[in-house]
Amino acid sequence: MEIIKGGVTSPAGFKAAGIHAGLKKAKKDMAFLLSSADAVTAGVFTTNKVKAAPVIWDQGVALSGIARAVVINSGNANACTGRQGLLDAEETAAAAAALAGTEKGKVYVCSTGVIGVPMDMDKIKAGVSALYPLLSEDGGEDAAAAICTTDTFSKEAAAEVMIGGKKVTIGGMAKGSGMIHPNMATMLAFVTTDAVISHGTLQKMLGTTVEDTFNMISVDGDTSTNDTCLVLANGMAGNEEIVFGTEAYDEFEKAFRYVLGTLAKLITRDGEGAGRFIEMNVVNALTEKDARILARAVISSSLVKAAFFGSDANWGRILCAMGYSGADFDPSLVDLSFSSAKGTIETVKAGEPLPFSEEKAKEILLEKEITVTADCHQGSGRATAWGCDLTYDYVRINGDYRS
Amino acid sequence: MEIIKGGVTSPAGFKAAGIHAGLKKAKKDMAFLLSSADAVTAGVFTTNKVKAAPVIWDQGVALSGIARAVVINSGNANACTGRQGLLDAEETAAAAAALAGTEKGKVYVCSTGVIGVPMDMDKIKAGVSALYPLLSEDGGEDAAAAICTTDTFSKEAAAEVMIGGKKVTIGGMAKGSGMIHPNMATMLAFVTTDAVISHGTLQKMLGTTVEDTFNMISVDGDTSTNDTCLVLANGMAGNEEIVFGTEAYDEFEKAFRYVLGTLAKLITRDGEGAGRFIEMNVVNALTEKDARILARAVISSSLVKAAFFGSDANWGRILCAMGYSGADFDPSLVDLSFSSAKGTIETVKAGEPLPFSEEKAKEILLEKEITVTADCHQGSGRATAWGCDLTYDYVRINGDYRS
Repeated sequence: MEIIKGGVTSPAGFKAAGIHAGLKKAKKDMAFLLSSADAVTAGVFTTNKVKAAPVIWDQGVALSGIARAVVINSGNANACTGRQGLLDAEETAAAAAALAGTEKGKVYVCSTGVIGVPMDMDKIKAGVSALYPLLSEDGGEDAAAAICTTDTFSKEAAAEVMIGGKKVTIGGMAKGSGMIHPNMATMLAFVTTDAVISHGTLQKMLGTTVEDTFNMISVDGDTSTNDTCLVLANGMAGNEEIVFGTEAYDEFEKAFRYVLGTLAKLITRDGEGAGRFIEMNVVNALTEKDARILARAVISSSLVKAAFFGSDANWGRILCAMGYSGADFDPSLVDLSFSSAKGTIETVKAGEPLPFSEEKAKEILLEKEITVTADCHQGSGRATAWGCDLTYDYVRINGDYRS
Repeated sequence: MEIIKGGVTSPAGFKAAGIHAGLKKAKKDMAFLLSSADAVTAGVFTTNKVKAAPVIWDQGVALSGIARAVVINSGNANACTGRQGLLDAEETAAAAAALAGTEKGKVYVCSTGVIGVPMDMDKIKAGVSALYPLLSEDGGEDAAAAICTTDTFSKEAAAEVMIGGKKVTIGGMAKGSGMIHPNMATMLAFVTTDAVISHGTLQKMLGTTVEDTFNMISVDGDTSTNDTCLVLANGMAGNEEIVFGTEAYDEFEKAFRYVLGTLAKLITRDGEGAGRFIEMNVVNALTEKDARILARAVISSSLVKAAFFGSDANWGRILCAMGYSGADFDPSLVDLSFSSAKGTIETVKAGEPLPFSEEKAKEILLEKEITVTADCHQGSGRATAWGCDLTYDYVRINGDYRS
């Protein structure tokens, strides 16, 4: 696998564009992604019972297994908008399909932004029309910018692998920021590839990879109405079909995991108001499931997050979060350490506190990237979760998001 | 039932005291509560797998069904302190028992404060000795002050009922502030009564009442290692024994529920950094359990809490939190309204947004006490949960709690 610079237009046969269509005050707010041929597709969607209209539409497209295009807008989530919201999502798909010469059933529609406000369909349709002629193989960056909401930077990743002598490329873009939590929170992620792969294989790979990447990050514990992760594979690399259980599968999955993992971590780094990036490793847990639950509980705890904001080596709050996580573990066996570029401190051994230098701890925790490791000494389950600190800015950003 | 001014020393036969024993810099930090006779007792404890040493000790006392005294300290939680922590809790109980002329097995020990620091037993033992001669029937207020940590005010409540011509009194005190969450978070609550009641009846009543009171509040979603709610009933009112299924039981339970509910709401009002008090009512849910889950999810959501900080009528976040709560409900049937002393606005009808005046909404939400009502139109389940907003001060207080 080779990491390359790029995004959704890095694989062969994908064009994209991003513009300001007037849904937001000044920033880019609409994107169009088009494959030059029908693509095999897979999707993972929010588990929230309140699903935005475009999510309901997209679930149908993903089930059909074939897609050509994606239209994305920021500024309005088209959520809690009733029957009209569903009609608006369908109309958006139809407008894009007409231009691209395909059926509306092959066009995904994704929306992010404020909840409960009807879509301004005049702007949306004018946006689709304005985007189409701008579609370009260099448009990935503009599209990545257009899908952002409170994100402070665009999120892209790409990688190449050789499959039986053919170069296969995977690219992706995502938006995150608020409401990022395990089980897909307001997060939109789009992955493109020119690989030849079946719908079933792609859907399976997406499901397992999302478990270890997007479902292991948290910004504030809320799960949104719009979370969506879509993959389009248009087969233009001409490789032999990637089949489960082969070396080619493993190689491709590694690159796929790299792209999704990188996007997930970029989302966490850019969590609303985030000042620090926290990686929580749980090792030697009873089971992998327990490890996952433990790691997620720690990065989701407001008290742990506030302690990191204050560069406070408050290991007690970490043990406490593990304690209420619901995972099976024995607190009296746990070792706990903090590390960063400035070194490592061991704070707990077999469930009991170790003496450590508060100055050294402060030095380590003042860094921007901190790793916490909990060794459960019970089995071989391991998991990593990523989060950020809880800051004044998070409160400010979310205190008056609608105005 | 008559509401009276008072606390743990309001019922006959209870004395208390509170002093500064040197665990905290200047504020009162130790309390002693003594019944003049053996009392029937019941307790509910944290569900966290990481239990502080005194919790483990107290579970034994509660199981025995008989208690005489409670020693409480703030400033140090005696949690994650290993075997020494257990010995320290036992030694504290023994010191108090020796003075009170009882067995250590009848003395509860409760601690709250920082995690992972060994107890300063010299100060604790000196504190117990200093407290004993100060025990008084007017000492409830001092005790209530001594158990506080980041609380900004003491929390007390009391009520009287007539049972078969005898006056029965119930009093209580609590400490809360950070880490308050359903299923008992760093919360200590002590309830005294002079009622004649059996251990089994008292334990049952405590369990069901805690479900509707302390387990329906949230400050930040973390569940602590030390949460404890204890009841002592010393029988000095001389009433006929309170038995389940009688009018006397119902009357007593009403007063008991008033005391616990009042303490729970006081804890929420004093949540770390809280500026607003939020009451979330769910009505006509499929089941009472669904109603509970829905109400708790809303008051636990960081995004909802931040919206209340900004006086933002962001009903979409409320529906969204209900959506990921895990409860069974149909979003397309829900009505949602906000109200306060300034009036009411209906924002959602059958899952779809209603137009409303933003000025009117702001006026309502600028109040300090806000009620949100969600009508699920599906059954007869109802529940109420209490929470507070998420503020800059919460982040400040928790960013550097240890120093």
